[in-house]
Amino acid sequence: MNRAEIIAVGSELLTPYRLDTNSLFLTEELNRLGIAVVRKSVVADDRQALAAAFREALERADLVVSTGGLGPTEDDLTREAAADALDRRLLLDESVLENIRERFARLGRAMAPNNQRQAMVPEGAAVLPNSSGTAPGLWIETGERAVLLLPGPPGELRRIFAERARPLIERRAGARRMAHRMLRAVGLPESDVDHRVAPIYQSYADVETTILATPEGIEIHLTRWSDDQAESTRVLDELAARIATTLGDAVFSTEGETLDGAIARELQQAGLSVAVAESCTGGIVSSRLTRIPGSSLFFLGGAVCYSNQMKTAWAGVPAELIERHGAVSSEVAIALAEGARSATGAALGLGLTGIAGPGGGTPEKPVGTVHIALAHEGGVREQLILFAGDRERIRRLAAQSALDILRRHLLRARRERG
Amino acid sequence: MNRAEIIAVGSELLTPYRLDTNSLFLTEELNRLGIAVVRKSVVADDRQALAAAFREALERADLVVSTGGLGPTEDDLTREAAADALDRRLLLDESVLENIRERFARLGRAMAPNNQRQAMVPEGAAVLPNSSGTAPGLWIETGERAVLLLPGPPGELRRIFAERARPLIERRAGARRMAHRMLRAVGLPESDVDHRVAPIYQSYADVETTILATPEGIEIHLTRWSDDQAESTRVLDELAARIATTLGDAVFSTEGETLDGAIARELQQAGLSVAVAESCTGGIVSSRLTRIPGSSLFFLGGAVCYSNQMKTAWAGVPAELIERHGAVSSEVAIALAEGARSATGAALGLGLTGIAGPGGGTPEKPVGTVHIALAHEGGVREQLILFAGDRERIRRLAAQSALDILRRHLLRARRERG
Repeated sequence: MNRAEIIAVGSELLTPYRLDTNSLFLTEELNRLGIAVVRKSVVADDRQALAAAFREALERADLVVSTGGLGPTEDDLTREAAADALDRRLLLDESVLENIRERFARLGRAMAPNNQRQAMVPEGAAVLPNSSGTAPGLWIETGERAVLLLPGPPGELRRIFAERARPLIERRAGARRMAHRMLRAVGLPESDVDHRVAPIYQSYADVETTILATPEGIEIHLTRWSDDQAESTRVLDELAARIATTLGDAVFSTEGETLDGAIARELQQAGLSVAVAESCTGGIVSSRLTRIPGSSLFFLGGAVCYSNQMKTAWAGVPAELIERHGAVSSEVAIALAEGARSATGAALGLGLTGIAGPGGGTPEKPVGTVHIALAHEGGVREQLILFAGDRERIRRLAAQSALDILRRHLLRARRERG
Repeated sequence: MNRAEIIAVGSELLTPYRLDTNSLFLTEELNRLGIAVVRKSVVADDRQALAAAFREALERADLVVSTGGLGPTEDDLTREAAADALDRRLLLDESVLENIRERFARLGRAMAPNNQRQAMVPEGAAVLPNSSGTAPGLWIETGERAVLLLPGPPGELRRIFAERARPLIERRAGARRMAHRMLRAVGLPESDVDHRVAPIYQSYADVETTILATPEGIEIHLTRWSDDQAESTRVLDELAARIATTLGDAVFSTEGETLDGAIARELQQAGLSVAVAESCTGGIVSSRLTRIPGSSLFFLGGAVCYSNQMKTAWAGVPAELIERHGAVSSEVAIALAEGARSATGAALGLGLTGIAGPGGGTPEKPVGTVHIALAHEGGVREQLILFAGDRERIRRLAAQSALDILRRHLLRARRERG
C-alpha cells in the first residue's frame, strides 16, 4: 500500500467560504506511514457523483480516504456512495445503533430517528468506533485495496485515525517511509533564500525541497522517501546542517520551533527580561511575546503608545523630542525602547514607531516607514525599515522584524558570553 | 455554461504544507457569473495524470479551470497535458515569445532558454496576456465547452481572470446568477445560532444557508440562484432581516463589516475614545482595535500589564487590591478598566485579567478563567467568563468577548441617545 487519494465530501466545501483542511493532517499521517497522496478531490453531497469518485480513485490508488458526509441527515451520502462503488449492500449494525442510543442517553436526549442512518454499514466493513461523536469510521477492504471513511469534524477524524485506522494501514504499508525536516528562517527574502540554498539541495537528488513564505518567516521543508530510515536521518541531518550554515543567523529553528519560542528560550537561558513600547504595531509585538506558556517569566510589560501623550506618560518620551523630530523618527523609537526598559525594569526594551497606513504618509516618511529600536544594558541599536503592502501586512512584518532584531541580539549576547 | 470544475496543479499541493486557496477566489468569481463549481481536484505535476484529469472534468463540466503548472521548468506540464486531453498540437506563439523577451529585457536580464516553453500554445487557443508575469493564461474552446489555464501565483491569476477571462466566460454564461448575503454574529454558540435560525431559513427552500464558526465570530451565508436578480435581492434582504431580528444584538454586521470595524464605526459616530489594560490577552485586544485605518482617532492607548508591578505602574491598580483579591479577580479587572480610562483620558476603559494556561490554574480559578471589565462615564460593568481550549484559543476568545462587551455597550448607548 503506497498510493492514496483523499476525497473531501460536502457541498459547503465547493463554496467560496470553506476549504478542506483535514487533508493536510491526513497527508502528514499517510506520508509518515510511507504512503504518498497522489490526488485530492472535493465532491458535492451527490450520491452518484460521489460513487463515481470512489470508483475512479480506486483505479488509481491502493487506499482511498474520504472525509465527511457521515452525519445523520439526508445530505450525508458517503456510506451509500461507498457501498454503491464497491457493490456492497448496506446493513444495519446493531452494535453501532446501540452505541448511538447510549450516547444520546448519556446526554439525556432522545435519539432522533435520522440517527439510525449512522448505524448503516456496508457489508464486510470494519466499524471504527468514534468516542467523541455519533458517526463511526468505516474500513472496507477490497482485494489489495482499501477504502477508509472518516467523519468530517477534525477532532473526531483525528482521533479515529490515530486510534483505529493507523494500525490497519500500518499493517499493509511497505518498508518505505517518509522522513522530514523543517528549517525556519527570517530576515531574508524568499528568492534570496532559494538562490543561496539551491546549489546545495540540488546535489541531493533524492530529497524534495520546498521553500514556503509564511507570515512568520520562511519554511524550508526537506523530504526523503526511503526503506532505510537511518540513512534518511543521516542525509537530512547533513543537508539541514549545510543549509543552516549557508543561511547563518537567518535560520532560527531546525526542529520546528517558532520565532516566539526561540526568543523565549534564549531569554530564559540568558536570564533576561524584556518589555515593549509599540505604536504602529498596536500590540502585536506584545501579543506574540506572550503567546508562549510561561512568558510571565521573561515578559514584564508592553505599552501600546498610540497617542503622543501616552508615549510620554507610559514610556517617558519627552514631549519636546516628539515635537522636534516627529512621532515617527529614530529618536522617538530609541526613547520608546529606553522608556519601556526603565518603566518596567526589564533588561531589554523594544521600541517601535511607524506609519502603517493607508493614511499618514508623506514624501519623506511614506506609508511603511518603521523605526525599530532595541535598548540594552550596553546601549541602544536602532534601524529604519521600509515595508511594502497593506496596513495589516506592514504591521505584521514590522512586528516580525522587531522580534528578529531581539533574537539576533540574544544570539550575539550568547556568543559573547561564550 | 453553468457547471465548472477547478483543477489545482502541483505536487507541492499534495504535501502536508500547502493548500490550494486560489479555488476560493475562482469559486466566488464563477458563482457571480452564475456558474456552480461541481468538483475541485488537486493533481500532481504528472503529464498523464493531468491529461486524464482534464478529460474526466470535461465530461462532467462545461468549463474546466486549471491553476498552476504554467512556469518555465520541466515540472510545469499543464500546457502539454491540456493539449493531450484536447488532441491539439502545441505551437510556438511568436508574439508570446516576444512578450517574454521584452519582459526580461525590461528587467535587464537575459531570457533563460527554458522560458521558451511558456510560449508554447495549444492550437486554436486564445492567449490571455499576463501583465505581471511571464506565463500567459490560455483559453481553449472545444464545442460548447471551454478550458481555461491560469498561472498559480495568486496576483497573476486574479488579474488575468478579471481582465481577460471574465468577459469570455460572461459571454457564454446564462441568465442565472448567484446572489449572496452574509451576516456576522458574536456571543452565541454555533449550535444556538443554528437552533434559532433554522426554522426561519428552512421556509426559504430556494436559499442555501451555511453557518460557519470562525475565530472572529459566526458567519451566516445566504445564497440564492436565480434568473431574477431583483427577486433574489428582495428574498435575501427579507431573510437576512428576519434572521437579524431573531438573533438580536448578537448580529453585528449584515454587510461584511468585521467586529473591529463595527466598533470603530460606533465609537466614531458617538465621538467616544477607548483605552485598554490587558493581562492574559497580552496585547491582542489593542492589536485588534488598531487594525482599522484611522484608529488613532478613537484608540488612545493600551497597556499590557503582565506583571503585578505594571498593573500598578501603568493602570494604577493598588498593590494591596492585588494582594487581597489576587491578580485574577473582579476587583482587579475593574481597577484595570478604570485605570486605563484615567491614565489616558479615554471615555471608555477595557480591563482584562485571567489565566490563559497551560499552567497557573487552581481549583477555584481554573485555566480559562477570565474577568472582563468595561469602565465608562456612568460606572463600570464586569463579567467572569470561563473559556475552554488551549492557551491561544483562550486568549483569542477572551479578546473577542471583550470587544463584544464594548460593542454591546456602544449599542445601548446609541439607543439611549435615541
